[in-house]
Amino acid sequence: MSVTAALGFVAAGCHAGIKRRKFDMALLATEDGCPVPCAAVFTQNKFVAPPVELDRATLDANGWQAAAVIVNSGNANAGTGKPGYKDAQLMAAATGHALQIANSHVMVCSTGIIGTPLPMEPILSHVPHLAKKLSVAGGHDAARGILTTDHQTKEVVIQGSNFTLGGMAKGCGMIAPNMATMLAFLTTDADVPRAVMQKALKAASDATFNTLNVDGATSTNDTAMLLASGKRGKADADEFVNAVLAACRDLTMQMARDAEGMTRMAHVTVTGAASEAEAKAAAKSIVENNLVKCSWYGGDPYWGRLMAAAGSAGVELDVAKSRVAYGGIVVAKSGVAIAHDGQALTEHMMGDEVQIEVHLGAGKASAKMIGIDLGPGYIRENSRTS
Amino acid sequence: MSVTAALGFVAAGCHAGIKRRKFDMALLATEDGCPVPCAAVFTQNKFVAPPVELDRATLDANGWQAAAVIVNSGNANAGTGKPGYKDAQLMAAATGHALQIANSHVMVCSTGIIGTPLPMEPILSHVPHLAKKLSVAGGHDAARGILTTDHQTKEVVIQGSNFTLGGMAKGCGMIAPNMATMLAFLTTDADVPRAVMQKALKAASDATFNTLNVDGATSTNDTAMLLASGKRGKADADEFVNAVLAACRDLTMQMARDAEGMTRMAHVTVTGAASEAEAKAAAKSIVENNLVKCSWYGGDPYWGRLMAAAGSAGVELDVAKSRVAYGGIVVAKSGVAIAHDGQALTEHMMGDEVQIEVHLGAGKASAKMIGIDLGPGYIRENSRTS
Repeated sequence: MSVTAALGFVAAGCHAGIKRRKFDMALLATEDGCPVPCAAVFTQNKFVAPPVELDRATLDANGWQAAAVIVNSGNANAGTGKPGYKDAQLMAAATGHALQIANSHVMVCSTGIIGTPLPMEPILSHVPHLAKKLSVAGGHDAARGILTTDHQTKEVVIQGSNFTLGGMAKGCGMIAPNMATMLAFLTTDADVPRAVMQKALKAASDATFNTLNVDGATSTNDTAMLLASGKRGKADADEFVNAVLAACRDLTMQMARDAEGMTRMAHVTVTGAASEAEAKAAAKSIVENNLVKCSWYGGDPYWGRLMAAAGSAGVELDVAKSRVAYGGIVVAKSGVAIAHDGQALTEHMMGDEVQIEVHLGAGKASAKMIGIDLGPGYIRENSRTS
Repeated sequence: MSVTAALGFVAAGCHAGIKRRKFDMALLATEDGCPVPCAAVFTQNKFVAPPVELDRATLDANGWQAAAVIVNSGNANAGTGKPGYKDAQLMAAATGHALQIANSHVMVCSTGIIGTPLPMEPILSHVPHLAKKLSVAGGHDAARGILTTDHQTKEVVIQGSNFTLGGMAKGCGMIAPNMATMLAFLTTDADVPRAVMQKALKAASDATFNTLNVDGATSTNDTAMLLASGKRGKADADEFVNAVLAACRDLTMQMARDAEGMTRMAHVTVTGAASEAEAKAAAKSIVENNLVKCSWYGGDPYWGRLMAAAGSAGVELDVAKSRVAYGGIVVAKSGVAIAHDGQALTEHMMGDEVQIEVHLGAGKASAKMIGIDLGPGYIRENSRTS
């Protein structure tokens, strides 16, 4: 059910032939073809893909509403210039035509390789097929159609007291062959002001998707969208905001677990920072450091690398008041190793998820980030795209 | 000869037992035991190792001069706190005693694993041995004594019109088991003002050592030093500055070629940036991006990743005026792939050194950085330290 769990939405997925064997297209639409309020968060990358440019322009022009989202995987339609923008427009037009709705109510998303023109023939010939297949049961097929190298679909349903929130995503952990693109589509039958939807989606993205750091770079195509049919009436704003956060957190964990080549996930918490910005900078420096990532792969509690990564982040760090802990086991204080339970530490390091706290001793701010280990699987997936 | 090529310097190296089989100590000294002007550049990491703290304090107190440098490899004496600082002082005192010079004229450097107390017994028992072995011929042994996982010594000699500049280094490319520490020691028999020496070393470090980016983080122990005996009298300041730059560039290339697990080096030039700072930021974003690094390993001319890495650097980028070239072969313009000589491109990508230009189309500033590919060898070297 996933993205069609909320009342008022239908979906479909299919194999159009962009990829060799797997599903590579998805269509999500309102049941009645009417546009509904749409919130969206897009990549901050300056090398932005044409479909993202089109969606931004469309939403700005139509007052932030949508009746359908057409997605293809296998090709990001990025680095394709003006012809790529026209191809994205053509995808919207074909979808509008098939559903008998305005083109300006169609969102377009692409994910896959960069720099190669979108294969329009299979896409255009399969849009009518997708339109015919639309159903409440089609949510899972749609979740398959948006994947690239993901091993599994990522779906979520959150039941509120008087509304449902459903969603599907493809992972930013799914790296090859594209630039770590993350797509997430959420739907709800709650009736909430669009401003609340946008604020909820932005806050949830920052607290979840944006804390998962696989490659340290944003993609050309990253997109998160939230559509609200309003079919079940007014919802409590706070409850709704929490539901969006819970859904995004759930999808983020599914992405992390399915990251290409990963064997171990690390939940990094930086505490004792002078400001939240500095806490984030230190956490980012840690989860992006290849020596740190390799030590996670090896299950090696090499706390010195964590401190050195934090120390090179350009943030305030008082070594004398600092502290490093793995799984709650403090291994270093004041920049010096201290006695600890080695057996418990080894067991923690060998688990699927490592909990790390680095205390900077410089203040009271903190930040969390999720990192992925760096092992041979990552390289195998990312050294050749063809 | 290397670090003893300039008149007035002697050196020695030995196996003290910190590492299992390899040389792990080095001593460099003035021939007559007299202190000479010393320039130095240290790591900017806030988690700084005690020997770096000691050297900074010593130089500040003694007016920036030195008569000897004692180095050990295998243990960085980092993350060792106050006891580590005392151990560094003890190394200086033992060296001062053995050479019958003031402790305050002894520099101390360590490199190796972080977080483990320095094994003082082998170090202290071998300082007198090193002092006795000091000779002009001992330069190569000293170059061996400072290595960690380097495969080869890194040595250089530059002949000026009336002076000699020699040097030795260990690589920031030699990653395991320490945090990518780089040590470089230069000596000269030129007589140049200390202010010129310091300026030359700082500028050369920025233009060479600091453009080689292996892990994206500074180490706890990075140190570059330059000692001048003045034995051959006044040298032309410009010629001297250029000689220091040439020596540092040569050592940097030796480090890059010897980087653990590397198979391919990339010379990344970012042009058309709005400012030099933005050019550097874009170059850093490119050479640190794991997807980019993996594509170098695979010899894959995936220009979209370069653009996406530049696009996520937070710098001005005008895609319409942008350009990407490998080995002078332009593969993309205005963010779109263009026709090019595929055969020549493949041959260039398969070489040991890839030349990359990313033009941002936003201004006239540029910056260069050297990156290293990411292959299985890197992970093999860095996933376990014990």
